[in-house]
Amino acid sequence: MNHARPKHADANATGEVNRTAGVVIASNRAAAGTYPDRTGPVISQWLRDQGFDPLPVRVVPDGEPVKAALADLLAERPGVIITSGGTGITADDRTPEMTAGFLQKQLPGVAEAMRAAGAAKTPLAVLSRGLAGVSGTTFIVNLPGSAGGVRDGLDVLAPLLEHICTQLAGQRDAGHPAAPVPNSGGHHGH
Amino acid sequence: MNHARPKHADANATGEVNRTAGVVIASNRAAAGTYPDRTGPVISQWLRDQGFDPLPVRVVPDGEPVKAALADLLAERPGVIITSGGTGITADDRTPEMTAGFLQKQLPGVAEAMRAAGAAKTPLAVLSRGLAGVSGTTFIVNLPGSAGGVRDGLDVLAPLLEHICTQLAGQRDAGHPAAPVPNSGGHHGH
Amino acid sequence: MNHARPKHADANATGEVNRTAGVVIASNRAAAGTYPDRTGPVISQWLRDQGFDPLPVRVVPDGEPVKAALADLLAERPGVIITSGGTGITADDRTPEMTAGFLQKQLPGVAEAMRAAGAAKTPLAVLSRGLAGVSGTTFIVNLPGSAGGVRDGLDVLAPLLEHICTQLAGQRDAGHPAAPVPNSGGHHGH
Repeated sequence: MNHARPKHADANATGEVNRTAGVVIASNRAAAGTYPDRTGPVISQWLRDQGFDPLPVRVVPDGEPVKAALADLLAERPGVIITSGGTGITADDRTPEMTAGFLQKQLPGVAEAMRAAGAAKTPLAVLSRGLAGVSGTTFIVNLPGSAGGVRDGLDVLAPLLEHICTQLAGQRDAGHPAAPVPNSGGHHGH
Repeated sequence: MNHARPKHADANATGEVNRTAGVVIASNRAAAGTYPDRTGPVISQWLRDQGFDPLPVRVVPDGEPVKAALADLLAERPGVIITSGGTGITADDRTPEMTAGFLQKQLPGVAEAMRAAGAAKTPLAVLSRGLAGVSGTTFIVNLPGSAGGVRDGLDVLAPLLEHICTQLAGQRDAGHPAAPVPNSGGHHGH
Repeated sequence: MNHARPKHADANATGEVNRTAGVVIASNRAAAGTYPDRTGPVISQWLRDQGFDPLPVRVVPDGEPVKAALADLLAERPGVIITSGGTGITADDRTPEMTAGFLQKQLPGVAEAMRAAGAAKTPLAVLSRGLAGVSGTTFIVNLPGSAGGVRDGLDVLAPLLEHICTQLAGQRDAGHPAAPVPNSGGHHGH
């Protein structure tokens, strides 16, 4: 929180969409180096294709390190943060729980749409518990860890991302607080 | 709460569906008179077409005035309250938060169905955070503020409204409390 | 909680999927014997067809008895518990509320998929408030009380159940706690 102001954060002073983007990969195996991270590069490239400027991918173990990575990234005030992994049903899968406390408003329809898009290909897509929502003026979304789940999620986000970030930029410029409250813990929308 | 008993409330004593309906438009611009309210008349006419008897439309600014309007309307014990506006992602959009505290039971499937119906026309429909649920024996639903969002939402409600109100009327006649608790704050279904 | 270890629980010590299944029917009329339970046998037969070993169906009145039946069944540590009934909007319909406190993780996509499957046949299917989720290493799901709602729900579960139980078995064998905490009350996923 007492980080020096990162260069990307300066973009926040303009009236334009904040095009800085964070990417967090939640995977015990990828963080331990026993398994290569394959979804981080896909998400970063997709963000570039959408006109965003991704920060280096953060690959962290499941659970509390995801919360720490989100808090760290939110201090840089990116326009969007995309996570992948940890949305399933095992005890290790805790990305939604690590994300929930940062969201002042949840967007359940984004999560629904991603599950519906995935379910058209595999019934197991309905098991993702990933959240989407707003933290300050940052849009955060949890994608599944699988390559297919990431692709389906990005397809759902493609027609939404610019609109969401434009709305959050307008809100920021109207004097609403840009700073998230990473440790608030319980102020989600409903 | 200390209002004189309105004429519509007397319908509650019969064994029939309570056909009184409230309409709340949440819009800073419409409430300030800088923009005409176009969705209120559409919703009122639709309610008449469904055999309901709408009270005058209440046009209020976003946020706390929405909660006050709901509390005021609930004191009249209508069968249904439909709101429009304030379901989006900006800081002003707080209609779901203003509604949640009144709902003893949420009906997430109604909100899902409205988003799905809208998404068939525009992907942005998934961004609505509108709630639906039951407060005492009143059904409450949050529609988006856009004309298209209202139309899609009403299309989803058309085959449901009579059934919902019939079930709530049966519950009322079985001796369950008809009176909502507008300031309860936290007794939603799940 | 101080029950003798039931025979089915011994299956938990193996590395295999826990094929014990519980079935709870929530219905005031069926519990009073004024109406035969028709969905319990359908669910039990479906479970057998899926390779599971159903315990005797428990038919209980709506509300608190559902919570007691769930607590009692969870003490036997089954792999899955399916409930039917009490998911609607009347004051008696409280199965989701009785279930929520047992779920450490909710699976909203399973409930969404069941409502969507039902809505393809009747719009009223969107009114089900049934939950799905994980309690310890037990998967719990609330189906509606109607024969059609049960059938639609089971069709959605068919391609998911083996995968869910395999994942929960792996988690159990990895040393995560198998024992649910039936009276925890508030540790659900999000």
